[in-house]
Amino acid sequence: MIHEVIVTTQNNNGRAQIAPMGIKWRGEIIVIAPFRPSSTLNNLLSQRCAAINFTDDVRIFAGCLSGRYEWPLSDSKYIDAPRLADALAHAEVRLEKIEDDVQRPRLLCRPVFQANHAPFRGFNRAQAAVLELAILTSRLDILPMEKIEREIDYLSIAVEKTAGEHEKQAWGWLMDKIDEHRQRQQVTP
Amino acid sequence: MIHEVIVTTQNNNGRAQIAPMGIKWRGEIIVIAPFRPSSTLNNLLSQRCAAINFTDDVRIFAGCLSGRYEWPLSDSKYIDAPRLADALAHAEVRLEKIEDDVQRPRLLCRPVFQANHAPFRGFNRAQAAVLELAILTSRLDILPMEKIEREIDYLSIAVEKTAGEHEKQAWGWLMDKIDEHRQRQQVTP
Repeated sequence: MIHEVIVTTQNNNGRAQIAPMGIKWRGEIIVIAPFRPSSTLNNLLSQRCAAINFTDDVRIFAGCLSGRYEWPLSDSKYIDAPRLADALAHAEVRLEKIEDDVQRPRLLCRPVFQANHAPFRGFNRAQAAVLELAILTSRLDILPMEKIEREIDYLSIAVEKTAGEHEKQAWGWLMDKIDEHRQRQQVTP
Repeated sequence: MIHEVIVTTQNNNGRAQIAPMGIKWRGEIIVIAPFRPSSTLNNLLSQRCAAINFTDDVRIFAGCLSGRYEWPLSDSKYIDAPRLADALAHAEVRLEKIEDDVQRPRLLCRPVFQANHAPFRGFNRAQAAVLELAILTSRLDILPMEKIEREIDYLSIAVEKTAGEHEKQAWGWLMDKIDEHRQRQQVTP
């Protein structure tokens, strides 16, 4: 089972890195599999810790795909990596073992602290639609435009019916990004 | 903004009713709009209270659409309606005002108690897909089979890639229901 979360790490100089990522639980262990090369991978290998942020704020997912990396952070309790200030819950993890891979090494991490900050408010269909659009946006260069257009048509229904302000804003950021891609495609032969 | 939740109520004889429903917040007030006629509406009008259960267990949504109404319940703290035993969070509400409507009266309810039981674990794409399939399943009689098949093809990708055991089971229950519908359509002219 894969959960979509925000992983926060920092480098040797204390610079924070915020990245959307799909994680798996293996018993009590959280498996993170960042692509090679990536700052999250570098930071996890050098600092050997990360915060796993369980947030329902889809602006952060859409923001990281559209150049918006400035989100409120707080100090973690036990590790040298920041956490999102406003996540519903978070786990602080330490890197325990690496299963190497050319493309996506699997980092086996053990939670050393977990906190539950605010209640889950139920499923929101627009949040799920924004997440699907974010995944499409991350694959613009390999997907045919026709498939993208078709999925946008489908996903936009849930956004129109069920979105709040955060979801509309996140959707708009991703649509801007897709429009840029569309225009680039029309200009270049 | 609409959140998909499980509303639990009981009738004069203490019989519990479990129903998936989309709710809206209007400031501090939760707006529930059950269809007329429905047991949830009757119970809310006679008992004037309900529990709003914020659960990520999609089996309960799929179960209520496929005849599986037996889910673990607990007593609420302040109201005469049960709550789901295993929701991530719940709110106990009292009916305060009714905005009448022929089809879907809006019941304005005030939370009198809220509790946060377990942390949100992040978005899971399969959970969202099961929820979309549940909505399709509730509209089998009015949607063309071709549209249903197309959406199943799309939604099944997220289920294959990200589902856990609960999500697979819920998906299976809904697919059984859709298969029954498909067979009935083939038999009746």
